[in-house]
Amino acid sequence: MSDFLGALHERLGEAGLLVGGDLAAYENDWRKRYAGKALAVARPASTEEVAAVMRLCHEHRMPVVPQGGNTGLVGGSTPDDSGRQLVLNLARMKRVRSIDVVNASLTAEAGCVLADVQAAAAQAGLLFPLSLAAEGSCTLGGNLATNAGGTQVLRYGNARDLCLGLEVVTATGEIWHGLSGLRKDNTGYDLRDLFIGSEGTLGVITAATMKLHPQPRERLTALAACASLDAAVALLGLARERAGDALTGFEVMNRASLALVARELPQLAQPLPAAEWTVLLELSDAESAEHARAVFEGLLEAGLERGSVQDAAIAQNIQQAKAFWHLRESIPLAQAQAGLNIKHDISLPVSAIAGFVAETDAALAAYLSGIEVIDFGHLGDGNLHYNVQAPAGVDPAGFLLAHEAAINELVYDAVQRRGGSISAEHGIGRLKREELAARKDPTALALMRAIKRALDPLDLLNPARVL
Amino acid sequence: MSDFLGALHERLGEAGLLVGGDLAAYENDWRKRYAGKALAVARPASTEEVAAVMRLCHEHRMPVVPQGGNTGLVGGSTPDDSGRQLVLNLARMKRVRSIDVVNASLTAEAGCVLADVQAAAAQAGLLFPLSLAAEGSCTLGGNLATNAGGTQVLRYGNARDLCLGLEVVTATGEIWHGLSGLRKDNTGYDLRDLFIGSEGTLGVITAATMKLHPQPRERLTALAACASLDAAVALLGLARERAGDALTGFEVMNRASLALVARELPQLAQPLPAAEWTVLLELSDAESAEHARAVFEGLLEAGLERGSVQDAAIAQNIQQAKAFWHLRESIPLAQAQAGLNIKHDISLPVSAIAGFVAETDAALAAYLSGIEVIDFGHLGDGNLHYNVQAPAGVDPAGFLLAHEAAINELVYDAVQRRGGSISAEHGIGRLKREELAARKDPTALALMRAIKRALDPLDLLNPARVL
Repeated sequence: MSDFLGALHERLGEAGLLVGGDLAAYENDWRKRYAGKALAVARPASTEEVAAVMRLCHEHRMPVVPQGGNTGLVGGSTPDDSGRQLVLNLARMKRVRSIDVVNASLTAEAGCVLADVQAAAAQAGLLFPLSLAAEGSCTLGGNLATNAGGTQVLRYGNARDLCLGLEVVTATGEIWHGLSGLRKDNTGYDLRDLFIGSEGTLGVITAATMKLHPQPRERLTALAACASLDAAVALLGLARERAGDALTGFEVMNRASLALVARELPQLAQPLPAAEWTVLLELSDAESAEHARAVFEGLLEAGLERGSVQDAAIAQNIQQAKAFWHLRESIPLAQAQAGLNIKHDISLPVSAIAGFVAETDAALAAYLSGIEVIDFGHLGDGNLHYNVQAPAGVDPAGFLLAHEAAINELVYDAVQRRGGSISAEHGIGRLKREELAARKDPTALALMRAIKRALDPLDLLNPARVL
Repeated sequence: MSDFLGALHERLGEAGLLVGGDLAAYENDWRKRYAGKALAVARPASTEEVAAVMRLCHEHRMPVVPQGGNTGLVGGSTPDDSGRQLVLNLARMKRVRSIDVVNASLTAEAGCVLADVQAAAAQAGLLFPLSLAAEGSCTLGGNLATNAGGTQVLRYGNARDLCLGLEVVTATGEIWHGLSGLRKDNTGYDLRDLFIGSEGTLGVITAATMKLHPQPRERLTALAACASLDAAVALLGLARERAGDALTGFEVMNRASLALVARELPQLAQPLPAAEWTVLLELSDAESAEHARAVFEGLLEAGLERGSVQDAAIAQNIQQAKAFWHLRESIPLAQAQAGLNIKHDISLPVSAIAGFVAETDAALAAYLSGIEVIDFGHLGDGNLHYNVQAPAGVDPAGFLLAHEAAINELVYDAVQRRGGSISAEHGIGRLKREELAARKDPTALALMRAIKRALDPLDLLNPARVL
């Protein structure tokens, strides 16, 4: 064992350091696009241990890959294949440290699984609204490092918007004690938001204080069929106007998305006949079930009258509401069953979305006949998962090899022309690093590089990710 | 004229550069605590001109003080008395560049007065909720540079929370084109939030894209009398539970605040009998006037039943609502009339506020008999303006000279013990620079200094402010 590993072992003990053996769960990413080889896996149990790891890494010039639940989609949390990078896994730091009901806040460690944070808040009678498909295994630290989004962003914001304060270990192993239950604090630069979304390249988040919200009295879910994306955007405007902040979900699924689910997961009921676009709406009401239902019925009737809605169904009970959501959340699974595809996690101004989709659908059809666009996502946030699938009968792996670069260019060029983002909620990691370098504003890139050099001059923290 | 001023004059023209003459409006701060002397005042009319100014400043190593409406309270936007600092006033850049109704966003230049941004949004049928006492003269750029708060933060957040994208000129005169109408964008470090709140020390904000919100159907205002701050906190919890996000204002005023207003501004009607604490509540309803009133009445009745409210009055019309708000907003004016006082713009976890006030009121009374605490602010955000006034008959100026340092120490120590902030919404500027150096987490200070060095290595941007 090297001096470095020996020193780590001495500091972290048997449970805190994995060397050799089967480390595959720590070395490979969730989508299986990156197969890595770690020097070792450090599993510190406390902030002080994280700081000790970083001090040793700094002393020995060892690169570090911070890791939470390892559910990321861009290769940001697994080591490269050099066998020289230390994985710093935070799973053992999973304590909810405190809940302050009157202040509506909660402090938890980075390795706390998102579902456990949600459960702790619920037990205190409050809501932690961050919610996404991986919530059973992703961790709070990873959610913050990637500024995770999910299905409740429309009303409650992304991970950044829910965070009040952070505890962070720096590249040199110093601890920033920035946990805070404050709603307002203008004492200097916004370090919190700099670390949030930096994907482990500027520091290691070890704990966070998060905002909680009141539990709504009633939550209602509906499906609405729309003849076009323009109609869905009109329905969004109507819903905002009538329901205000009670509108907590507005998800769209194109015809191909639900057809794919019908093919791959035929056991799932589809309550509405197939439509060009199906919208899933969620309303969270502070008053009562009756009030929620009246608002929802009024909204959908107005949508029918104005022609933005063709057909609609309100879930009659919790089981049905869950089934509606399950339909939406099953699209990625149906895609995984159907084989590899080219994913785009893009955002646009809401006013530009319909034009983008029409133009890009047409351009893709012209590029390759029979190509399928599985298009779904969070319309209220301007965020689409615009995924491109091989024509029926074409081998997905071969399709990716032949067409991924050209299709990415086609899609990202169209996004850029309309002022959009090539990564709305998944981050950059390794997957989009070159796209970022090519497409981001050059002054922004220069500023980012200057900040990286200032906070991690030896380039030890998640090197070759993001920048 | 020096080479530098000659080059500036050539680039900016007659209207763009003021040298000599009466520059007092640019040199002195709003509270008249700092009297400065500027080298000159640059008044660029475009982003390109701001960039040219910064390139010249960089070339000639000239320090720059960015300035908007110059309404700040901490001496951050006026030059020191050396006569060597260039004031970079953005008032000529006051265009609303565009409004996107479907995307609910607006892009305006830094020098746009806040009230004009509000008016442009209203004209498009939407709401720009940032609202504060100086809104008739403060500017959007200054609001962002200081992360301004105000009376609608409880529901809509501070300036940071309302910002989608920025255009910024760097210390070397590069332009970052970061205007964006996107709700979600995870492409690299959060430069936007780094510039927001950095008080002109990292770059010059020249334009911003801001979020707009639907106009509420109805806005209702009420006053409630509470026997204690604990009772007011209980009422806040009740209001959140019952009104959810419809609760857009929750301001508190202690007995001394309203007594001061009665003394200094006797023409203002005070609808409720004097109470230990008076709460101003605002409800914004997406549905109807009837619905808003029913929610408000239900809430106040529940408050009366549970004993958290002693007495209450709902405004019967817009005039009355304005009068209620005017009462709250007149406290600073009444203070100014009464003479100098020691201001503290602090925040605490909501759960810690009542304890802090009880302890600190008592400590101040013990420190100096007859001392008066004018305590008011945004309870929903945990933000109090905890201002200390000389005992009756004591000369305010002499009182400040003799006691300001000791009283600041007493108050800030108590804030720090309870995890609070010494600047909730006013920023640091020159006024709190030493306090920040003494009280901020040392790792945070080191990180801030590293970022400052990285983005402004020659220390030309608002030097000796914040850090």
